[in-house]
Amino acid sequence: MASRSVTIFFFFFFFLSLLFFSAISEASKCSGKEFPLIRNISELPQSDYGRGGLAHTTVAGSLLHGLKEVEVWLQTFSPGSGTPIHRHSCEEVFVVLKGSGTVYLAPSSYEKYPGKPQEFFIYANSTFHIPVNDVHQVQNTNEHEDLQVLVVISRPPIKVFIYENWLMPHTAAKLKFPFLWDEECLEIEPPPKDEL
Amino acid sequence: MASRSVTIFFFFFFFLSLLFFSAISEASKCSGKEFPLIRNISELPQSDYGRGGLAHTTVAGSLLHGLKEVEVWLQTFSPGSGTPIHRHSCEEVFVVLKGSGTVYLAPSSYEKYPGKPQEFFIYANSTFHIPVNDVHQVQNTNEHEDLQVLVVISRPPIKVFIYENWLMPHTAAKLKFPFLWDEECLEIEPPPKDEL
Repeated sequence: MASRSVTIFFFFFFFLSLLFFSAISEASKCSGKEFPLIRNISELPQSDYGRGGLAHTTVAGSLLHGLKEVEVWLQTFSPGSGTPIHRHSCEEVFVVLKGSGTVYLAPSSYEKYPGKPQEFFIYANSTFHIPVNDVHQVQNTNEHEDLQVLVVISRPPIKVFIYENWLMPHTAAKLKFPFLWDEECLEIEPPPKDEL
Repeated sequence: MASRSVTIFFFFFFFLSLLFFSAISEASKCSGKEFPLIRNISELPQSDYGRGGLAHTTVAGSLLHGLKEVEVWLQTFSPGSGTPIHRHSCEEVFVVLKGSGTVYLAPSSYEKYPGKPQEFFIYANSTFHIPVNDVHQVQNTNEHEDLQVLVVISRPPIKVFIYENWLMPHTAAKLKFPFLWDEECLEIEPPPKDEL
C-alpha cells in the first residue's frame, strides 16, 4: 500500500516538474537570451500559424531575439495563398527571393475605406516597400511556384489591422495583436493605444 | 562675325542647360519620388564607393527612396575585404546570402576602447544582429569566394563612427556622415548631436 502511494506521489511529482519546466522553457523561448549570436536560418522554427499555404520564420525578432527597432521574417506562400488585406503603422520592405506574385496596394486617402487597390507584379530579385498605414495584400498569383520573400518591418512587434475586403471601413478593420507568430511569447502586453 | 557670336552663344547656352539639368537630375536622384514601387535589385546602382572589394547597392534607402525607419542594403565583399571597425547607434541585422566570413564583435563595456573582439564564423543562410553601439567589423575571411550579405539598419541614414584599430579610444573614433553611399544625395544636413 505504502509502495503504491510512493509510486503515485512519484508520478504526480514528475508530472508537476514537467509542467514547470515546460512553462520555464516556453517563457525563455521569447526572452532573446538563449539564442546564439549566429543562427542558421534553416534551423529556426517554421510554421503556418494556422494560415494555409504560409511558412513563416522569424529570422530576427523583437520578442524572440530582443530586437527593438527592426524585425526580419522569411515567408513562403504556396500558389494561391497570401497575406490578409491589412495595414500597420510601421514601414515594411519586401525582398522577393523566389517566385512571383502580386501586391495589391490602396494608398492612404481621405476615403472611409481602402477602395479598389492598385496591382503590381512582383518577381524574384525585386524589392518594394509599403508606406506606413497603406492598406495592402501580398498574394502568390503564380500557379506553378512558391513565392518566397524576406520581410523587414520597423517598430516591432507588429500590430496588424485586418480588413475582410477592400470596401470595409478603416474604422472597422480588426486589430490582431499580438500577431500570429508573436502569440506564443509570454509576458506580452498590448501597447498604449496611441502606438497602434 | 555675327554667325560666330551666335555659335558661341549657342554652345554657352547648351553648356548651361546641361549643368542645370544635371543638377536637377542629381537632386531628384535622392528625392524618393522618381522610383517605381517595384524595383529590380539587379538594375539598381552598384558601386564600391572607393572601398576596394566592396559592391554596395541600396535596396531600400532613406535618402534614395524616402524610407524613414529602416534601410536595406545588398553588399558583396571579395575575399580579404570587409567593413571598417565601426559602431553606430542603430540596430543592424545581417542575412548571409552567399559565401562565408568572420564577424568581429566587441560588446559595449565601460572600457575606454573596444579591446580584443570576439570572433564568430558566418556562413550562407546564417543571420546575426549587432546590438546598438557595439563596435564590430565584418570580413570576408574566405579566400575562395565572395561574401554576400543583406543588411538591415534602423534609424537611417546611417551615422558611422570609425576606429583605426581595436585599441582606439571610443572618443577618438571618427564620425563619417553622410556615409559613403549617402554622400551623393543633396540637401542632407547633419542630424542634431543627440541623435548620433
